[in-house]
Amino acid sequence: MNRQILLKSRPIGMPTEDNFEITDAPEPKLTQDDGVILESRFISVDPYMRGRMSDAKSYVPPYQVGEPISGGIIAEVLESNDESLKAGDFVLGNLPWTERQTAKVDTLKKVDDSLAPLGYYLGILGMPGLTAYFGLLDIGRPEAGETVVISGASGAVGSVVGQIAKMKGCHVVGIAGSDEKIRYMIDELNFDEGINYHKTSDMQQSLDVVCPYGVDVYFDNVGGEISDAVLTFINNEARIVICGQISMYNATEQPVGPRPQTLLLKRSALMQGFIVRDYADRFDEGIKTLAKWLKEGKLTYRQTVTHGFENLPKAFLGLFKGENIGKYLVEL
Amino acid sequence: MNRQILLKSRPIGMPTEDNFEITDAPEPKLTQDDGVILESRFISVDPYMRGRMSDAKSYVPPYQVGEPISGGIIAEVLESNDESLKAGDFVLGNLPWTERQTAKVDTLKKVDDSLAPLGYYLGILGMPGLTAYFGLLDIGRPEAGETVVISGASGAVGSVVGQIAKMKGCHVVGIAGSDEKIRYMIDELNFDEGINYHKTSDMQQSLDVVCPYGVDVYFDNVGGEISDAVLTFINNEARIVICGQISMYNATEQPVGPRPQTLLLKRSALMQGFIVRDYADRFDEGIKTLAKWLKEGKLTYRQTVTHGFENLPKAFLGLFKGENIGKYLVEL
Repeated sequence: MNRQILLKSRPIGMPTEDNFEITDAPEPKLTQDDGVILESRFISVDPYMRGRMSDAKSYVPPYQVGEPISGGIIAEVLESNDESLKAGDFVLGNLPWTERQTAKVDTLKKVDDSLAPLGYYLGILGMPGLTAYFGLLDIGRPEAGETVVISGASGAVGSVVGQIAKMKGCHVVGIAGSDEKIRYMIDELNFDEGINYHKTSDMQQSLDVVCPYGVDVYFDNVGGEISDAVLTFINNEARIVICGQISMYNATEQPVGPRPQTLLLKRSALMQGFIVRDYADRFDEGIKTLAKWLKEGKLTYRQTVTHGFENLPKAFLGLFKGENIGKYLVEL
Repeated sequence: MNRQILLKSRPIGMPTEDNFEITDAPEPKLTQDDGVILESRFISVDPYMRGRMSDAKSYVPPYQVGEPISGGIIAEVLESNDESLKAGDFVLGNLPWTERQTAKVDTLKKVDDSLAPLGYYLGILGMPGLTAYFGLLDIGRPEAGETVVISGASGAVGSVVGQIAKMKGCHVVGIAGSDEKIRYMIDELNFDEGINYHKTSDMQQSLDVVCPYGVDVYFDNVGGEISDAVLTFINNEARIVICGQISMYNATEQPVGPRPQTLLLKRSALMQGFIVRDYADRFDEGIKTLAKWLKEGKLTYRQTVTHGFENLPKAFLGLFKGENIGKYLVEL
């Protein structure tokens, strides 16, 4: 039996398991165009996917109701009629959530499980790692001695951002939603400070304690009230990197809040949205550098892995509950 | 009799004439330090001065209650003990609102009234012209064929921004508050389109008509709901130049509105605040280029001039009522 997961209906507000449907899929057969049969091994769940479940205009086209969800997958080649890939090879692709499927060889990238654990290619050596790398270095441009604040700091992107900022000699403050995450950031990732936003009655006051010299770079994964508080601390010429706004993704009405423009004006500050695809022509540089840092022990990395194809919807929903430390993956 | 204008009290909300006080000032006398006696000829009123009337932290220090307002002034040298300046010369300085005063020679810049009318050094060849030049070219980075929208488009800065954008081959849309201003932008400044926001019941719809290809650069002088509407039209990799937020300057509570972060994220867009001082090391380049364009007839320029020292507060307040077309000055 082969299974796939479809978008059953578009969520209004927070998605639920009812928005997904597991159905049978035909067994894949090689064709002229589709030169390989793949078996999914690791499937990535990412916050940006929430955007694709709606039909609003965004940087990636929406999923279609009745069609499979798709995203980053590491798969094993079962059969191949292409000389560049053979059975037993592993590949990375943007693929439908299906257990076994055919694919066009030129849409896949071969990955080497002797260089890094397979899941890493969906995390620190994949989209989240590159997002951290380019967002921080190209937009945030941290300099030694500056203060870098990260929201969603223990996640797949934030955990890498903070470690790179530490390498650059910055004072690094991570904001996350549990004491376990704060311990992880400080004990394992070497961040300077952590704020558990669930345990803080006054975010401004908490930030005031840990950012005595203001904030030079704010790497924002969450948006909303946490960001409102951080923004009041920005220094002159601060850089605010808008990487994600997970607290807003399930909003059913246009979110309102303090207008940031006057503050940007008063501080000559920059606020820049981006997606990693903006840097597609520099991916090789990014992966090479991240792999080097990982090998040298300058980056540590953790992933949260759930097992079972049928648990994909649950894992995805867990992202919005903050269940994961580091990259969240489903292993099949 | 010599007069000066003091900040009598800090305004709450919209300033009134009661926040200012005209008092006698002593007749100036040369000293060792203050090598010239000046008589003010043109005094600039600018929206940013509203910020200095409050005591909130901003990019320029607040005015002090009981002390003179200060700002850009073109003055004539009456007496000088410094060989670099002689009686009859004209200078530009950041000076207190006083009819006659002494000044340190090294805080003044000599200006040449044979090259341009004196008032121009407070406008197109001064702070507003440089603000337009650097804000548009360095942050907005318009390219031929792109759509540039300007709010406060008929003012000292906006009128120059739009003309430079036209030089760059852009589709230029100006937003202003009267039909006379719209005619000025289209007939004299050669903008492509104008929207009178007072006569538009639906800003979104008006923008939709004149921005069929979306908005690539938004040069924002006003903020608030006009900007909310423009932002919904931004294209991928749009640049939003935060130059002013005049609609917010008199707010007595933290202004709230639609959060722009999600839109910046979806469009990989940049929002950058700045003040012209950020470009101080390139002022010579800017003035030289603006003067050249002016001489070649590529830039046209208009100023609104009120007469009489005692009318300074009224002129300043007029900025918030949209009384001016182009730079607003008081001539003595």
